[in-house]
Amino acid sequence: MITHPQNPSIGVLLFSLKGAVLQVIWKKVLFTILISSVVMATHGTVYNYKVLLTATPFTMWGLTLAIFLGFRNTVAYQRFWEARTLWGELLIATRNLTRQASSLLPELNRAERLELVNPLVGFAYTMRDHLRGDPPGADARRLLDPAALEALDGVGNRPNRLLGLLGRRFMDAARNAGAGEVIQTGFDAQLTRMSIAFGGCERIKSTPIPYPYILMLHRVVHIYCFLLPFCLVDSIGWFTPVAVGVLAYTFFGLDALGDQIADPFDTHPNDLPLNALCRGIEISAMELLGEPAPAPELPVDGVLL
Amino acid sequence: MITHPQNPSIGVLLFSLKGAVLQVIWKKVLFTILISSVVMATHGTVYNYKVLLTATPFTMWGLTLAIFLGFRNTVAYQRFWEARTLWGELLIATRNLTRQASSLLPELNRAERLELVNPLVGFAYTMRDHLRGDPPGADARRLLDPAALEALDGVGNRPNRLLGLLGRRFMDAARNAGAGEVIQTGFDAQLTRMSIAFGGCERIKSTPIPYPYILMLHRVVHIYCFLLPFCLVDSIGWFTPVAVGVLAYTFFGLDALGDQIADPFDTHPNDLPLNALCRGIEISAMELLGEPAPAPELPVDGVLL
Amino acid sequence: MITHPQNPSIGVLLFSLKGAVLQVIWKKVLFTILISSVVMATHGTVYNYKVLLTATPFTMWGLTLAIFLGFRNTVAYQRFWEARTLWGELLIATRNLTRQASSLLPELNRAERLELVNPLVGFAYTMRDHLRGDPPGADARRLLDPAALEALDGVGNRPNRLLGLLGRRFMDAARNAGAGEVIQTGFDAQLTRMSIAFGGCERIKSTPIPYPYILMLHRVVHIYCFLLPFCLVDSIGWFTPVAVGVLAYTFFGLDALGDQIADPFDTHPNDLPLNALCRGIEISAMELLGEPAPAPELPVDGVLL
Amino acid sequence: MITHPQNPSIGVLLFSLKGAVLQVIWKKVLFTILISSVVMATHGTVYNYKVLLTATPFTMWGLTLAIFLGFRNTVAYQRFWEARTLWGELLIATRNLTRQASSLLPELNRAERLELVNPLVGFAYTMRDHLRGDPPGADARRLLDPAALEALDGVGNRPNRLLGLLGRRFMDAARNAGAGEVIQTGFDAQLTRMSIAFGGCERIKSTPIPYPYILMLHRVVHIYCFLLPFCLVDSIGWFTPVAVGVLAYTFFGLDALGDQIADPFDTHPNDLPLNALCRGIEISAMELLGEPAPAPELPVDGVLL
Amino acid sequence: MITHPQNPSIGVLLFSLKGAVLQVIWKKVLFTILISSVVMATHGTVYNYKVLLTATPFTMWGLTLAIFLGFRNTVAYQRFWEARTLWGELLIATRNLTRQASSLLPELNRAERLELVNPLVGFAYTMRDHLRGDPPGADARRLLDPAALEALDGVGNRPNRLLGLLGRRFMDAARNAGAGEVIQTGFDAQLTRMSIAFGGCERIKSTPIPYPYILMLHRVVHIYCFLLPFCLVDSIGWFTPVAVGVLAYTFFGLDALGDQIADPFDTHPNDLPLNALCRGIEISAMELLGEPAPAPELPVDGVLL
Repeated sequence: MITHPQNPSIGVLLFSLKGAVLQVIWKKVLFTILISSVVMATHGTVYNYKVLLTATPFTMWGLTLAIFLGFRNTVAYQRFWEARTLWGELLIATRNLTRQASSLLPELNRAERLELVNPLVGFAYTMRDHLRGDPPGADARRLLDPAALEALDGVGNRPNRLLGLLGRRFMDAARNAGAGEVIQTGFDAQLTRMSIAFGGCERIKSTPIPYPYILMLHRVVHIYCFLLPFCLVDSIGWFTPVAVGVLAYTFFGLDALGDQIADPFDTHPNDLPLNALCRGIEISAMELLGEPAPAPELPVDGVLL
Repeated sequence: MITHPQNPSIGVLLFSLKGAVLQVIWKKVLFTILISSVVMATHGTVYNYKVLLTATPFTMWGLTLAIFLGFRNTVAYQRFWEARTLWGELLIATRNLTRQASSLLPELNRAERLELVNPLVGFAYTMRDHLRGDPPGADARRLLDPAALEALDGVGNRPNRLLGLLGRRFMDAARNAGAGEVIQTGFDAQLTRMSIAFGGCERIKSTPIPYPYILMLHRVVHIYCFLLPFCLVDSIGWFTPVAVGVLAYTFFGLDALGDQIADPFDTHPNDLPLNALCRGIEISAMELLGEPAPAPELPVDGVLL
Repeated sequence: MITHPQNPSIGVLLFSLKGAVLQVIWKKVLFTILISSVVMATHGTVYNYKVLLTATPFTMWGLTLAIFLGFRNTVAYQRFWEARTLWGELLIATRNLTRQASSLLPELNRAERLELVNPLVGFAYTMRDHLRGDPPGADARRLLDPAALEALDGVGNRPNRLLGLLGRRFMDAARNAGAGEVIQTGFDAQLTRMSIAFGGCERIKSTPIPYPYILMLHRVVHIYCFLLPFCLVDSIGWFTPVAVGVLAYTFFGLDALGDQIADPFDTHPNDLPLNALCRGIEISAMELLGEPAPAPELPVDGVLL
Repeated sequence: MITHPQNPSIGVLLFSLKGAVLQVIWKKVLFTILISSVVMATHGTVYNYKVLLTATPFTMWGLTLAIFLGFRNTVAYQRFWEARTLWGELLIATRNLTRQASSLLPELNRAERLELVNPLVGFAYTMRDHLRGDPPGADARRLLDPAALEALDGVGNRPNRLLGLLGRRFMDAARNAGAGEVIQTGFDAQLTRMSIAFGGCERIKSTPIPYPYILMLHRVVHIYCFLLPFCLVDSIGWFTPVAVGVLAYTFFGLDALGDQIADPFDTHPNDLPLNALCRGIEISAMELLGEPAPAPELPVDGVLL
Repeated sequence: MITHPQNPSIGVLLFSLKGAVLQVIWKKVLFTILISSVVMATHGTVYNYKVLLTATPFTMWGLTLAIFLGFRNTVAYQRFWEARTLWGELLIATRNLTRQASSLLPELNRAERLELVNPLVGFAYTMRDHLRGDPPGADARRLLDPAALEALDGVGNRPNRLLGLLGRRFMDAARNAGAGEVIQTGFDAQLTRMSIAFGGCERIKSTPIPYPYILMLHRVVHIYCFLLPFCLVDSIGWFTPVAVGVLAYTFFGLDALGDQIADPFDTHPNDLPLNALCRGIEISAMELLGEPAPAPELPVDGVLL
């Protein structure tokens, strides 16, 4: 996630290169500008044949293009925001379980509580690593005890397995503390909430926007941008490369941004800051228990991962 | 579901035929290109009569067309995504029940647990087969015990009946293990969740987008594409077939894609990968129990079914 | 509900009259075509006065028209789909209660179970009849026992009263079977779900889209279609009636379809198939109990009611 | 709420004045028609200076205007529909509590039940009066007993206080009838539902659409309509006043309608029929108890309040 | 929040400066008007070079601009409204807990009840201060007892910690009053609701709209507005500055308003009135307990903070 500068000046807004989108698309934009310049130089003539293109087909293509771009953009953002909301759910469920571990089981001592809460926090890190396709990293291994780590060994879906383990531990702790079925199912309800958050993230990860949308959108955008100079050159002359360049910047930019935020669990600058979210979950749980909490993740170079 | 290639080159994006949409619509697109070519050759004259068409009626038709296409596209995707979410719900409910079968009923032994969880996993396969209009397939028969299979025999709505059976078995297991009403209703809440997922999929399956939408959309799209050459031929000449072809590709493509994803339980390449989802449910449940899990489904030729 | 033909040919799609919309609007469409023909014949002259209309006002009216049509269309479909979802909820709740009547109260015998489930299924039929403004029909009377029928006699809101009766019966059955408060409130939760489904349908039924929307939309659509020929006649000549006819078909068609699906409980061909839904609920409940189930409703002439 | 006429004739639709919007905006529409007529008479000349305005700036202004109008319209309707849904929730919760008062507490006699249900119904009337900024009216005072009325005396937020009172009474009744914690929290869950419905209505009431939206929308609409004649006069001549009048009617009408339904608790003809909704709640509760129910509210002059 | 004037006159609507948006953007709008005036004076000539710009590129840029502006506007409002809804949730949960503290624990005396409810109300103020980046202010310190204040000392996330404390106190009170697990988990459910409201607000606060959207939107808007005069000057002459000024007002205004309401917890005039909301929570809780309540916050200069 790119952290917004506070009150950026117009200069920053207009000329800053730090949007993480221009780096991806500058070649395509430059290419369309080059095409436009050539078209401008030849006055739209290819092999001595004048290409006549009015604005009419572009207006008609624009009809579907607007539907495609608007749809793709909305869906990509919805995926991004749903993923963020699901991580918020995980934070809330972790807090609830930590709170309940004190309020509903007041008999537990500090060590017993930490034994429950540490793997709970470890779940967030394990889920992050799983969504990024990595094995459990240093943070997960720091928080999970040997028994838990062993249980995850060689398993395909580690967060799923860990959640099963957490279920057994919380129920055992509840039963040992003399809590009845109501409190047990109360804990279970929060584990279900975690299960929903995890299952939702898996769903977003495993089901991309149907490929033909991406394919058709790419094709129409490319055709549109590469043919546009022939349409504009007769009416606006040397301004053609500027006009086409601006349009290509927004079309390719919207497209590239959609690509990035539609799959928000990677480590691109515009993805969700999973490291910071996991750390936030750890801080929340530790502060609830009155334990020393680690420092929050800080943005590096304006980017929070 | 077509699996996205990682970082496809521009060449792949522009010229790949693997979108599963072009195969469906190429005849219509070709036909409009042919019409356009004829119109171009005759300069828009039919039986010595010059057809005069300006862009104005197309702009006006475009108004409703944009509403139709945008609406249809949004609704089709919502159906696709809701269906995917409901299958995610089924996964989550199956995991929850499997987790609860260990954590809330710790007295069960391995065989008793498998007796509960196997038909639970079998429910997913039965639901898949039912939504595809098939009888219970090899997977369902592998996981369901003879008693369960017999109960499903000759029944119209098998998943419904199986859910009733699962209800009785889970409650019996709970009562036998000495669990009280709270834990029983806890199990029942997850069965209700499965009932919701199944009922939702049935709703999507049995209630298509109202037919007049499809009819009107088809008609306007066809009229638009077949008349467009007469409008364009005077201003853009030999470019007419290209312009009309691109437009027909997006119009018919959007329409065909909408058809495919609006009814996402079939086995078209753009439908939901129900086989892979069912397998994922089985793996999840088995890993939670510490049992050996089957290998995940892999895409064949870039398509996951 | 009109059942979609499987793989309709282009001929069917273009020339079929079975959309249930053309029957409603053909007079208006024909009238605009007639006006257009007259305008074409007189070259846009009324009483020797040439009416000069450019495309500009139509573009501007198109701005609000697009907002009106898009809004009305979206809202109408949302009402249709919400109503369908609520009926799905009713199906799910009926199934849950039937399942719970076996799994949570295993002591009940077959007759006692049917005594509970028959009026439960009767509720769906009663709700259908109420939403259509009819008294309880043959199906409801078949399933409700004399005591229940008597309780509904002379009551304004029969489903509401019946739900109260169901509440008392399920609680009595639970108490008689020795079930505690948890199971009682478990039953009550499903009755609440039915109450939500019924209340939601009543809301849709009793609160139409605010009348001024319909009024303004109708007015602008009519003015647009009746004046359009004067704008087009100078540029596209004899093609004017075709262009106006196509536009009128989509405008009036979208409007008429919106009217039909916005109030989806009637017996128009595009309304919800309440008969089939009720029958489906009955089949589901009977199959769950292992009782003989009636045959599903079949479409008559391509229409499922 | 204006009740839709059944199958209105085209004459009614086109010329009826009963939309409750034209009464509000006719002055503005007339004013723009007057301006247009003057512009037409002077051929767009102001003080001997010819105002030259092409359609281009209007097209550009139309871009933001479409965003503004569409957004405002959607948000206003969402507020209207959410408010209606919350009142539906209140109806459902009242029914549930009434049902539970019979089914879960079968020991209560008729008088005790009425003592619980009467103030429950009184809550709806009190909430209506509160949302309209009125003190408890005749209906509320009819249903609330002296103790309840006294408790509301001098309180700022009467529904909130009344809900607290209902909570205490239902719990007392449950405890007196020997019901345990599960049934008590079951009642409390329905009271929470009522609390949600009330809190949601308060939210809509107290948080209008941000003022700058209204301000900017008004300004652009006025500028657009007042300048439009200068653009149209040269091309469409004497038709200018008609074209501008139609546009002004839809722009100002959409705006006025948005104003009315965005704050749906007042007594404008397009607001929610709170009187009828409250009466419906009373009828529902009384019919559930088998008590005589009052007659439903009927529309007066086509308007249901 | 700016409180809407009741029935503002047209004069107020057109010329009022109190929208809190014009103050932010007047420099940019003035600058575009100045550019337009210079362009008008030089007839679009820069350094003796005539800049030829037709409307075509603006129409094409308008395509993406409409998508960007509409998207950004919708998302910003959704964030605003979700934040408002979450604060409404907090109000509802506080009322529920206060109601339950009387109805479910009737044994508590007045002081014990206030000991529970005062920090509950203090939570709202603490959450407001936290979201604004402030330490607990006078209101929070007034309502929290020394033990609670001490627990929050030096903690990074104070509302989180306070919620943990509230959990322990409510459970202790319930246990001391002899309430069982059901009532304890009933209280816990409302605390979870508060946890959800708080976590949701944190999510909105910590995850802005992805930066590239803002960047691209700003760039296109600026380029559009600064180049527009060259396009308009030839056709509409001296009217250019007016047309460009109106457009710049809506573009920059929509952008600035989006900025303000997308992050609704600050103290800008268009942000949520958190002070008034907290005060409303306090009044509600006190009125429920029959305690003297403070006066509601009133708007200062038409702005409620």
